[in-house]
Amino acid sequence: VKLWVKTISARTREGALDAAAAFYAERLGKYASLEQTVYRSEALLLASLEKQKSRAAPFLAVLDRGGRAYSSEQWAECIRRERDSGRQDLIFAVGPADGWSHAARGRADLALSLGPITLPHELARVVLLEQLYRAFTILAGHPYHCGH
Amino acid sequence: VKLWVKTISARTREGALDAAAAFYAERLGKYASLEQTVYRSEALLLASLEKQKSRAAPFLAVLDRGGRAYSSEQWAECIRRERDSGRQDLIFAVGPADGWSHAARGRADLALSLGPITLPHELARVVLLEQLYRAFTILAGHPYHCGH
Repeated sequence: VKLWVKTISARTREGALDAAAAFYAERLGKYASLEQTVYRSEALLLASLEKQKSRAAPFLAVLDRGGRAYSSEQWAECIRRERDSGRQDLIFAVGPADGWSHAARGRADLALSLGPITLPHELARVVLLEQLYRAFTILAGHPYHCGH
Repeated sequence: VKLWVKTISARTREGALDAAAAFYAERLGKYASLEQTVYRSEALLLASLEKQKSRAAPFLAVLDRGGRAYSSEQWAECIRRERDSGRQDLIFAVGPADGWSHAARGRADLALSLGPITLPHELARVVLLEQLYRAFTILAGHPYHCGH
């Protein structure tokens, strides 16, 4: 599978948090190809989905504080299920500061919550990449998950 | 008030995540004095509490996946409450990989959860520092929280 991490941000990105994201992206890259893109608005992110054609429809998960609060094991199970059902592309999108529009929610296959706390999008991206990495180590039986 | 962030880790710390932690620690330092210490075991962390004497008993919150999942507003309210009741020292402790002992849980005033996902301690520390910073901006009426 190929992973797409799409973020919305109209601001300058923070170097320290970019480095933390790169730390987990590098590890995740051992398990799946990964493409990260930052969009300046939700409209541009949604437009990118239109252009993204593949044999099977991509799976789209939006991160939303009101979404389903999966455990790390449930994140892994979700990726296993989509992969085994023949999905080529799994898209994980971190939303705008004021939340997703009704249209964006309607397009998503799943809304996922990282918990009840509010996180800035640059830190949510780090946590997302770490959870994706953790999910693949769980599926691969790698001891990373047990060590934490 | 003075904040104490205590972490248990027997491993080498990751530079990229240290930089992300420093990013939020610097911002948090504008609102409260902050002391961060890494202990090599839970026993050493608990021993440090014995030595830590102050006029009022310190408030001890342990981060625990099974604890209370506060929203960011509830984190802020918790800090306001402890501060207003005359606490001098607020201690936030990130636990060992295999969870807190019964003794450590029994000592804590509060067990706080960052959500149902499992986070590595080095990333949990970054999220903790960001939430503490966010809590103080909420209490100060600073627009940081509204912007995310």
